[in-house]
Amino acid sequence: MIHTDLCIIGAGPVGLFAVFEAGLLKMRCHLVDVLPQVGGQLSEIYPHKPIYDIPGYPEIKAQELIDNLMEQIKPFDPGFTLGERVEALEKKPEGGFSVNTADGTQIHCKAVVIAGGLGCFEPRKPEVENLAQFEGRGVSYWVKDPETYRDKKVVLAGGGDSALDWTIFLANVADEVTLVHRGDTFRGAPDSAEKVFKLAEMGKINLILSSHLTKVEGKQWLQQVQLLNKAKEQIVLDAEYLIPLFGLSPKLGPIADWGLNIDKSAISVDTEAFGTNVDGIYAIGDINTYPGKLKLILSGFHEAALMAQSAFKHVFPDQKLTFKYTTVYGVNSF
Amino acid sequence: MIHTDLCIIGAGPVGLFAVFEAGLLKMRCHLVDVLPQVGGQLSEIYPHKPIYDIPGYPEIKAQELIDNLMEQIKPFDPGFTLGERVEALEKKPEGGFSVNTADGTQIHCKAVVIAGGLGCFEPRKPEVENLAQFEGRGVSYWVKDPETYRDKKVVLAGGGDSALDWTIFLANVADEVTLVHRGDTFRGAPDSAEKVFKLAEMGKINLILSSHLTKVEGKQWLQQVQLLNKAKEQIVLDAEYLIPLFGLSPKLGPIADWGLNIDKSAISVDTEAFGTNVDGIYAIGDINTYPGKLKLILSGFHEAALMAQSAFKHVFPDQKLTFKYTTVYGVNSF
Repeated sequence: MIHTDLCIIGAGPVGLFAVFEAGLLKMRCHLVDVLPQVGGQLSEIYPHKPIYDIPGYPEIKAQELIDNLMEQIKPFDPGFTLGERVEALEKKPEGGFSVNTADGTQIHCKAVVIAGGLGCFEPRKPEVENLAQFEGRGVSYWVKDPETYRDKKVVLAGGGDSALDWTIFLANVADEVTLVHRGDTFRGAPDSAEKVFKLAEMGKINLILSSHLTKVEGKQWLQQVQLLNKAKEQIVLDAEYLIPLFGLSPKLGPIADWGLNIDKSAISVDTEAFGTNVDGIYAIGDINTYPGKLKLILSGFHEAALMAQSAFKHVFPDQKLTFKYTTVYGVNSF
Repeated sequence: MIHTDLCIIGAGPVGLFAVFEAGLLKMRCHLVDVLPQVGGQLSEIYPHKPIYDIPGYPEIKAQELIDNLMEQIKPFDPGFTLGERVEALEKKPEGGFSVNTADGTQIHCKAVVIAGGLGCFEPRKPEVENLAQFEGRGVSYWVKDPETYRDKKVVLAGGGDSALDWTIFLANVADEVTLVHRGDTFRGAPDSAEKVFKLAEMGKINLILSSHLTKVEGKQWLQQVQLLNKAKEQIVLDAEYLIPLFGLSPKLGPIADWGLNIDKSAISVDTEAFGTNVDGIYAIGDINTYPGKLKLILSGFHEAALMAQSAFKHVFPDQKLTFKYTTVYGVNSF
């Protein structure tokens, strides 16, 4: 049984920075993540990708940001339970909560911070015969590293911004890019759609509209993608990679059963403390929503700071909170 | 006459980062600041001071953060009018605004972003005979660099957190520290007050309660500070430095006449776009207030991002805004 002040579900950048903001207020933290390492999607999906919109870093590699955050929270010595999925949350009659993982780890805490990020979502998969069989063998649902596709034959599918954006991007990387879309107009940004039409006109990509995926084939690895067009004609494309980009659907898992208000697959919070409708449970980062919400790491950082001010009253109900600047006081470890 | 999309009043860290967030949405910016250089108080007051609460930087010197932000916004080539004070703001009948400085510079823009920061405030000064005469000659209203006071005789005055915090801090730096307070209890954090009482008991500082400053004396430089206690007795202290810390009062100047809603010396904004009550005028950073507001640089960064999304509709009223991640698109200069 682990005892802590705040149990933070999700050890991505926002969950990690929450440890810092909590630590300044003398609150101890324990983080749980289903991934075997800290860093969330930054470490899991794009560790080598540069990020450009962290204030004060014209460019920083995703993993470097995580490493720096780990350094920043070191004085507050957080606990970690990695590689375990949170399964149950119980409100304790004596106050506080118990967060339990599928592996039987129990964390008793005074407040819960859900910092679940993108890891709480999963790609929407099209209904295509034997698609699952080629996952990891040519079929993937996001672009981890564009270099994977250099000089390869790639088929993308979808009609939203991701499909348009990656088609434009990979046009200069892959040997052959084909975009397959069920409709004949795009949901994504008009200027992106225009670019895609132009690339198709110039012969830089193949654009196949009003058609949908029906089957994938290959031996060990993907070799062919089959489509059906509006006239019910079959089209067969040679392809080494297929990237269906149909968006994400929430995989809130057991979190969905905790009685939290959910709005469009995200947890509704207020903008004063980023608290949910359940007193003592907060949600910060990509998993929350509020008017104006932008899914930016930097917004999650801000949310973590305001959350900590509010969580303080659950951890130290009898103490008056005084806000202190680190420029005056420095960062004092536990 | 300067034409731009956004006129940003204040070139501190938050004003600078606003250029980045605006630039991602193809909005051009022009910054105005009364200081002769960018960086606001970070460059003016504490360039060499380490900051510990910028996410991803366990420690960064204030000036280094400013330098990095300047590097980050370089692709968006903002304009600067430095060393000039904004005096008037006019709503143009044809739409947009004109921002005018005291030196006659006119900036025509589609939206105004007030990122005025701490520079819009001035210290509250006690009523003490000939105090102004010693400003810069021993008397100052904030601690720029604590090292200034090493091995010196310092008198601090005040009863709030700043007075308590700096008394505690300087106890280990200065030769002699005296804290003068008009009352006999402190408004600041209880644990800080307790520390100050303990330091006084241990003889590490002099604590003079129920007394107030009456006069300062010296030749070229401050030499003595005179007090009057409750019994109307005069106390004379030898002092090389006097630091009255009675808080800040707003110096919104002409901004106060622009019809913006003001709440406790700060500009009221919503938390969706950080807009004021005047359509097209935003306020971000330390100068604004909303429920939960924390005066953190990182909160100003978040506010800049959400502001930009809303300002877009003033700059490009006919365009649909599509949110794009820099990790996919990079940062494209103008």
